[in-house]
Amino acid sequence: MSDDKDERIEDLTDEASEAQEEGSYLLERRAIAAILYAVDINDAAKLTELMEPLHAADIADLLEQMNAYDRRRLVQLYDREFDGEILSELDERIREEVISVLRPDVLADAVREMDSDDVVDLLEDLDEPQQEAILDALEDADRVAVEQAMSYPEYSAGRLMQREVVAAPEHWTVGEAIDFLRSHEDLPDQFYHVVLVDPRMHPVGNVTLGKIMRSRRDVGLREIMEEVFQVIPVTQYEGDVAYAFNQYHLISAPVVDADDRLVGVITIDDAMAVLDDEHEEDILRMAGVGDDASLSDTIIEAAKGRALWLFVNLLTAILASLVIEAFAETINQMVALAVLMPIVASMGGNAGTQTMTVTVRALATRDLTAQNAMRVVIREVSVGALNGVLFGLTMAAVTGLWFGVPMLAVVIGVAMLATQVAAALGGIVIPMTLDRFNIDPALASGPFVTTVTDVVGFFAFLGLAASVLM
Amino acid sequence: MSDDKDERIEDLTDEASEAQEEGSYLLERRAIAAILYAVDINDAAKLTELMEPLHAADIADLLEQMNAYDRRRLVQLYDREFDGEILSELDERIREEVISVLRPDVLADAVREMDSDDVVDLLEDLDEPQQEAILDALEDADRVAVEQAMSYPEYSAGRLMQREVVAAPEHWTVGEAIDFLRSHEDLPDQFYHVVLVDPRMHPVGNVTLGKIMRSRRDVGLREIMEEVFQVIPVTQYEGDVAYAFNQYHLISAPVVDADDRLVGVITIDDAMAVLDDEHEEDILRMAGVGDDASLSDTIIEAAKGRALWLFVNLLTAILASLVIEAFAETINQMVALAVLMPIVASMGGNAGTQTMTVTVRALATRDLTAQNAMRVVIREVSVGALNGVLFGLTMAAVTGLWFGVPMLAVVIGVAMLATQVAAALGGIVIPMTLDRFNIDPALASGPFVTTVTDVVGFFAFLGLAASVLM
Repeated sequence: MSDDKDERIEDLTDEASEAQEEGSYLLERRAIAAILYAVDINDAAKLTELMEPLHAADIADLLEQMNAYDRRRLVQLYDREFDGEILSELDERIREEVISVLRPDVLADAVREMDSDDVVDLLEDLDEPQQEAILDALEDADRVAVEQAMSYPEYSAGRLMQREVVAAPEHWTVGEAIDFLRSHEDLPDQFYHVVLVDPRMHPVGNVTLGKIMRSRRDVGLREIMEEVFQVIPVTQYEGDVAYAFNQYHLISAPVVDADDRLVGVITIDDAMAVLDDEHEEDILRMAGVGDDASLSDTIIEAAKGRALWLFVNLLTAILASLVIEAFAETINQMVALAVLMPIVASMGGNAGTQTMTVTVRALATRDLTAQNAMRVVIREVSVGALNGVLFGLTMAAVTGLWFGVPMLAVVIGVAMLATQVAAALGGIVIPMTLDRFNIDPALASGPFVTTVTDVVGFFAFLGLAASVLM
Repeated sequence: MSDDKDERIEDLTDEASEAQEEGSYLLERRAIAAILYAVDINDAAKLTELMEPLHAADIADLLEQMNAYDRRRLVQLYDREFDGEILSELDERIREEVISVLRPDVLADAVREMDSDDVVDLLEDLDEPQQEAILDALEDADRVAVEQAMSYPEYSAGRLMQREVVAAPEHWTVGEAIDFLRSHEDLPDQFYHVVLVDPRMHPVGNVTLGKIMRSRRDVGLREIMEEVFQVIPVTQYEGDVAYAFNQYHLISAPVVDADDRLVGVITIDDAMAVLDDEHEEDILRMAGVGDDASLSDTIIEAAKGRALWLFVNLLTAILASLVIEAFAETINQMVALAVLMPIVASMGGNAGTQTMTVTVRALATRDLTAQNAMRVVIREVSVGALNGVLFGLTMAAVTGLWFGVPMLAVVIGVAMLATQVAAALGGIVIPMTLDRFNIDPALASGPFVTTVTDVVGFFAFLGLAASVLM
């Protein structure tokens, strides 16, 4: 390598570390440029030096943002340095790609370093042959642990938990607990509580390490238990697990089997990741993009994911058009109707989406329950009526000035009000009904709500026009 | 109280605790009924008994879901039992209401129990006089702490952090740390790390309590520091703080002032709450509901929050109508155009929203950067083109069968393709541009994208029709 090149890369490295220090968590363009340059000149030592200070999560982001060609070269050049944590952090599709590029012994080493719950997470998204290759790389004890976790249903607490738990008999004292912790070699990397169990391994409470440290050796563990104690059933849906962590500010919670026996522990970082995924899914579902859409999807995957919702929208749009066709004669007599009708429908669609979004969120955060449902419906309809009057009057004024036909102004004003009320009603009743029937309201409400607002909008406007103006 | 009533309430209580045991986190209808009944018969003892097993977060949810009249009666009956944690968990608007109902001495007691960061959170949303009443209730040391926290900008790390930090000189051994923790009375309730500091109080690393417990007394703390260590500047935006916790799987992180000196610590539960809020805001903003919309808003507040977006939508809808008006003559000659045109616009609007949602999310999660922007734009436009061809052909076929005019079928097919491509382009370029100019893309993209799809949709369809069919 020439001195010239060496200098350029040094410059980039300096700038990269400066950028890191600025406290913005984004990988700076220059850090990326330096890394890409090291790959370009095939300099494994430099690449390792540049990657060394980076967190696995940032390396994963970097890999996701590169094109496939650079990614493959980087992974090959990085080779033995590639560790399991990077794999855990990668997006599903990119992960499969990287696994297929890694040499088998590098992959085996990487997987052996990972916690069992991360291996489970990795395996979930892989094909059978890739799964087997990874299971074979594990040591016997780890493989059994992973296979057992995989036997729990997908998206259950059993898949999230780690099996390594620090537990102590409930009758122990602080001193006994400390001696136990001191003498035990294979404690988990991260733990925050000691779970107290009765003789049949039923969890009875949590003691924080902080409390243990602060207490005298002769204090009983039961005396310093946490007030808030939640036990998670192993089959519980991960979304409910995340809800419990968020609602009760848990840091870790023991997981129990059907007989209430302690089988593992879930920590808040896992719950936070689930919460993040759930939000992501909700947003993507509401926009009809498919809940696992990601920037690393191929064009075909992305197009397919969106086509379904577009197809449903096409059907509802055709339905709305049939309403218009029924009034073709009316439009023929007054073309202003064709000019104005999209305004009524569009305002209805927006109001419906607003109400629907508030409703879907309130259902997801469990703020909307049987307890307050009626009051919320009445509130939404009142909001719709209020905005209906406001925009009805506005549009009547605009129409009067624009087309100079007073009755047309009255017609659009009334149609606007009717559509806003219908949008509010549809926006709240449709997701609530779907939720009652256990259909995800985030996924399915959109098309129904739009259909209601379009049909009501066109029908109210054109129907009124036909009976009043013709 | 008659035996009969007493029996009824006993039944409800039993059922309530059964429901609690089922492991669903929702407060059961029966538990709520029992509580409301206790309020109805003015039985404070019973109310206290029923509320006792409930977590403050659940009591807060219960209060939020009641009507204002019942809420006031419950708060008054519960009286001295009302504690600070319930206040922390309440929704802003309901909290103000509850504070105004609480007796001043009850409020003072409640606030005195709270952690300083929770008091700060409480104060942020209150009016000046309410703020003063609460500050007056605090002990001197706490008041100073709270006032200092309030001096940091809103939404900054300084507001999130707690000032009670467990720190130790970096040269200490495990034994010294344990002795210190044992002898110290006023440690925070919850802590997971000991922050190592140099002589000038600059944080240099984190040691988990688990590591301290497992290590021999003569091991130096520096030797067992965490590998991943992030320091949070006190002025950092809370969204960036939450990002760092999520990205680097932090449990707690020290906060430093402008001179890099340790001033506090943020724990993951605070970060998780921020993450949750941020998601909520994104969803609500994208739907144009206003980022602090909540079910406890009054009708007027809710209507106002939504009217702004509806007004913007009205302007863009009128703009689209002006395009239609330009082709009024064309529509007059072929009313089928009026029937079909909403389909083109609606499909464009949906495709635009899909792309926009993916883009806004990718910007929020920092998956879309300068590094991969061009590739993502090309991908989105390709997806748009692919679905444009698919739905263009579909609509051409439908139109051909429906109206029997071959050229009309061609026109709608081509217009559909053009609109889908424009929607994809608008859906990605608009949020990226807003983001570049530091305008929140979640808030502002919607109206721009809809304008583009409506205008392009109507113009392509009617313009083509005018030039080909007339």
